[in-house]
Amino acid sequence: MSFTTLADFRTILNDMPVADETARTGAEARNGQLTKPPGALGRLEDLAIWYAGWRGDEKPALEAPQIIVFAGNHGVCAQGVSAFPAEVTAQMVMNFLHGGAAINQLAKAYGAKMDVHALSLETPTADFTTDAAMTEDEVVAALLAGWEAVDPQADLLVTGEMGIGNTTAAAAIAAALFGGDAATWTGRGTGVDDAGLAIKTRVVADGLARHADLLEDPLQVLRCLGGRELAAMAGAIARARSLCIPVILDGFICSAAASVLEMTVTGALDHAVAGHVSAESAHGVILKNIGKEPLLALDMRLGEGSGAALAIGVLKGAIACHSGMSTFAEAGVAAG
Amino acid sequence: MSFTTLADFRTILNDMPVADETARTGAEARNGQLTKPPGALGRLEDLAIWYAGWRGDEKPALEAPQIIVFAGNHGVCAQGVSAFPAEVTAQMVMNFLHGGAAINQLAKAYGAKMDVHALSLETPTADFTTDAAMTEDEVVAALLAGWEAVDPQADLLVTGEMGIGNTTAAAAIAAALFGGDAATWTGRGTGVDDAGLAIKTRVVADGLARHADLLEDPLQVLRCLGGRELAAMAGAIARARSLCIPVILDGFICSAAASVLEMTVTGALDHAVAGHVSAESAHGVILKNIGKEPLLALDMRLGEGSGAALAIGVLKGAIACHSGMSTFAEAGVAAG
Repeated sequence: MSFTTLADFRTILNDMPVADETARTGAEARNGQLTKPPGALGRLEDLAIWYAGWRGDEKPALEAPQIIVFAGNHGVCAQGVSAFPAEVTAQMVMNFLHGGAAINQLAKAYGAKMDVHALSLETPTADFTTDAAMTEDEVVAALLAGWEAVDPQADLLVTGEMGIGNTTAAAAIAAALFGGDAATWTGRGTGVDDAGLAIKTRVVADGLARHADLLEDPLQVLRCLGGRELAAMAGAIARARSLCIPVILDGFICSAAASVLEMTVTGALDHAVAGHVSAESAHGVILKNIGKEPLLALDMRLGEGSGAALAIGVLKGAIACHSGMSTFAEAGVAAG
Repeated sequence: MSFTTLADFRTILNDMPVADETARTGAEARNGQLTKPPGALGRLEDLAIWYAGWRGDEKPALEAPQIIVFAGNHGVCAQGVSAFPAEVTAQMVMNFLHGGAAINQLAKAYGAKMDVHALSLETPTADFTTDAAMTEDEVVAALLAGWEAVDPQADLLVTGEMGIGNTTAAAAIAAALFGGDAATWTGRGTGVDDAGLAIKTRVVADGLARHADLLEDPLQVLRCLGGRELAAMAGAIARARSLCIPVILDGFICSAAASVLEMTVTGALDHAVAGHVSAESAHGVILKNIGKEPLLALDMRLGEGSGAALAIGVLKGAIACHSGMSTFAEAGVAAG
């Protein structure tokens, strides 16, 4: 299964597998017999049951998480939307490859395999205030890069990103998908000052106006306002769904990219949970729009997949409890 | 260093070490040079700097966390304050020893060593509505059991508990330490119904009235209203402080026990963070009173140290980033 056009990709999104109901109800029954008061593990219980359903195993293991970091460059950077120069994207890719970034440490800490894909960094997307960020060929290539980056043997996926300027692209996408004015969706990103934030908000508003006639279609939103790393994340999250690999969503940019899928086909993110809510205030608004309750709220705003990586730790704990605990009968404990 | 009376223990609490300021400021300086926008790792940054200060190492490792679960039985159980029979305390201790409980799975998932101490389960504390829960000898013995249970080689401590009826003891302690009526502090614990909750609230009010003349002194609060596992947690947390071992506090019962230290000597919990806020609603009130912001909020209410154990995963991620990341200079990344 693959695709060569946006139309093909849309067709695939409309024909995705759903969770295994037998495994899910089996996990629910098992959960009720474990040596703890009913509900005492709170959200860990829901997480384990959700994971069991997607893995088709009422007593699943989580042993092979994959983190993929996609990097891209953005034409809108020329307008001064970021606190960092665009060269930092490539510099950080080298840092990922040398193992020096936050996400490298988190991948190691939680036993995840980490892959890095730099997407045509030397060719930024077009400035979306004047042109579509990507042609159809470009956005399809980026979606495919994500699609093909997923390891079919993985049992969990986290997608992260690096791309100076990409909170601007994410804000434009969120505004196009969910409505509201540009200022609702723009924030300080890596740390722009008031002047930078004003430019960012104006740039997003200009982009929305420029492409107004195409923005009814979420896939056109991704093409016109997105970036290669955002499209790649969407492609990877879609591929994970096709393989029944559960996904932990990261922050603002990842969630904006993922929202393109959900707004194309309702339920397209049923295999995903929100790893955290970031300090970029519009992230919480996106999560509300796609009906996801974040697992963590630690004021992080780094990207790279870092918030979702941290949530791998939580999910591991949830699954360890679910699959490793004794039942009341096994342990000879009175059930109350 | 040890103690044989409450007066000795109080003296020790008044003469505890503080964090290493050189290591703390060194860690702060290092944090500012790591390859990320300033503050982008949010609370992970504060956690790593806090940990560095207590370990006296500006680039610390976290390699030997210890989880200690203390179990005790409570005379007030006879009044019907719990949804589970008192026998479950001993049954769950066997479950801990056989590796079947939630905390066993979490200890394994986060690489912690786990110890279990059952404290005179065959001799419940006295019913605090009629007598002091413990004599001075009994409370000192329980404090010492905790004190001696800490591994001096550990680099992090989590204290957990098991004791049918112990949310009632914790509610009474919290009410005595922080004021407010009994109903402010009682909750459903492992799952009592409305009638059980009403009994629990009446029992707490009776206990407060019975010992009113002694409750100005937090150590007498612990003796009159507490339980052996609560005193042992307080003893262990104090010992960790004496050894500069950072602590992650667990839920309602652990936090009530720890509050005895903070109310005895302000700052006694500076070496501790709150791992989570539990679904037992009064837990959040305790945390506000001792000035701790929880790391996690996952609707857990199991005890055993489970919420704090989950937070070991978060702390591991924080320290991995702090001590493993490259600086801007090392990575050749522009600092913005």
